[in-house]
Amino acid sequence: MIIIGELINSSRSKIAKAIEEKDAEYIKGIATKQADAGADYIDINCGTNLKTEEEDLSWLAGIVQEVVELPLCIDSPRPSAIEAVLKINKNSTPIINSVTAEKERAEVILPMVKEHKCNIVALTMDESGVPHDTEGRFASAEKLAGFMDEYGIPMDNVFFDAIVQPVSSGPEQGIAFLDAVRKINETFPEAHIVCGLSNISYGLPNRKLVNRVTLAMAMANGLDAAIIDPTDVQMMATICAAEALLARDEYCMKYITASREGKLDV
Amino acid sequence: MIIIGELINSSRSKIAKAIEEKDAEYIKGIATKQADAGADYIDINCGTNLKTEEEDLSWLAGIVQEVVELPLCIDSPRPSAIEAVLKINKNSTPIINSVTAEKERAEVILPMVKEHKCNIVALTMDESGVPHDTEGRFASAEKLAGFMDEYGIPMDNVFFDAIVQPVSSGPEQGIAFLDAVRKINETFPEAHIVCGLSNISYGLPNRKLVNRVTLAMAMANGLDAAIIDPTDVQMMATICAAEALLARDEYCMKYITASREGKLDV
Repeated sequence: MIIIGELINSSRSKIAKAIEEKDAEYIKGIATKQADAGADYIDINCGTNLKTEEEDLSWLAGIVQEVVELPLCIDSPRPSAIEAVLKINKNSTPIINSVTAEKERAEVILPMVKEHKCNIVALTMDESGVPHDTEGRFASAEKLAGFMDEYGIPMDNVFFDAIVQPVSSGPEQGIAFLDAVRKINETFPEAHIVCGLSNISYGLPNRKLVNRVTLAMAMANGLDAAIIDPTDVQMMATICAAEALLARDEYCMKYITASREGKLDV
Repeated sequence: MIIIGELINSSRSKIAKAIEEKDAEYIKGIATKQADAGADYIDINCGTNLKTEEEDLSWLAGIVQEVVELPLCIDSPRPSAIEAVLKINKNSTPIINSVTAEKERAEVILPMVKEHKCNIVALTMDESGVPHDTEGRFASAEKLAGFMDEYGIPMDNVFFDAIVQPVSSGPEQGIAFLDAVRKINETFPEAHIVCGLSNISYGLPNRKLVNRVTLAMAMANGLDAAIIDPTDVQMMATICAAEALLARDEYCMKYITASREGKLDV
């Protein structure tokens, strides 16, 4: 499982404050904590800072790369902000987060992906917004696969995001997402499938429980990456067990090691 | 989700002792506890008592029916023991647990199911033993469906058991089980799908974690019944969240109520 640590995001008030005050030590601490907890990528997002996003994102990238060698997940809707980070990237191949099935957006983002040989999160939505059903998500995935082909981006650099919507907003949203994961996995087996998970539980109590149950189900359908809080020990234990169950952990050795280290006592 | 409480089983030493000493109060306590925890059926099993199974099983059935109104899950390989319980059954429609895809066994059990209009657990295995893969399980399911048709047993009285094998015994066992659940659900949508879950984690540490992750995945594939310990609060919370996610809990009302009652603080 590919874990993308989600904590460095300016929508979290402590991160917003640290960015505002240029508190590098705080950011470094969060980056290190996520790396130590098992993250494979460190997401950086300051999308709430509309006016200063470009410089803030580059500042975050620089700071994070001072303390961790993990690749970045460059999380921005703004091409100029992404490009600025790519120029100062020192760590291994990053993920750009994200492109959609909108032609205008693909035309700007995908040449960067091609040039820098990056990975790319491909959101299965287009100009009409987030689809309500599996078919809408899959139609966008097919359109995105066409774009990737056009720009010569290998499918194993693509992380399809089947887009989680709150189950409180519509009871079929969980199934629509899960079925989309399965269908995309069956159709594009070389691609990765990722999700930003926490939206599923928006408006419900005990959100972390819903999030980890969703993740287990999605993993069974082919999800192999997630944008999550890697310091959530219950979530990480769920992932560890799911990998053992899905034959992604030879002889259950990672599971058994995690158990010995007390990481599964949740 | 249909919860079959598994605790009254003579393979558990305290139950064996209670049966031996005819400690009715202990058995009643366990039955009540499972009912209070949300069981829909109470499984009774004294299969380890080879010589006295018939009378012990009837004793258990009588005792349990003194304190709970829930239907029984009559869990025995012995037709005479099952029949004896059916004769004294007072509660609503029980489940007979179980028949296999073996003709000789079906010929004895299915007439009883028909006569008493019972439900039946149909283990997807035959004389050659437990199948190693999805196809073997599915072949037995098809054979069993043929038997049900022959004896006029409606599919909604059938609980297919896709048979959980330890993932420690073969890394593909989890996937074989999960895929079998999906395929049986797609082929026989009117039937129920059940499993005895705990075998999946045999030989692994932190077994309950593996069990509940498996259950979430299997529910996403169509499992709608499980033979479990209903007093396992983490398991029950997982089921509650899974039902909300799978649109089996209108407006997430059961989930929200459970949360208010503190049942999801796990």
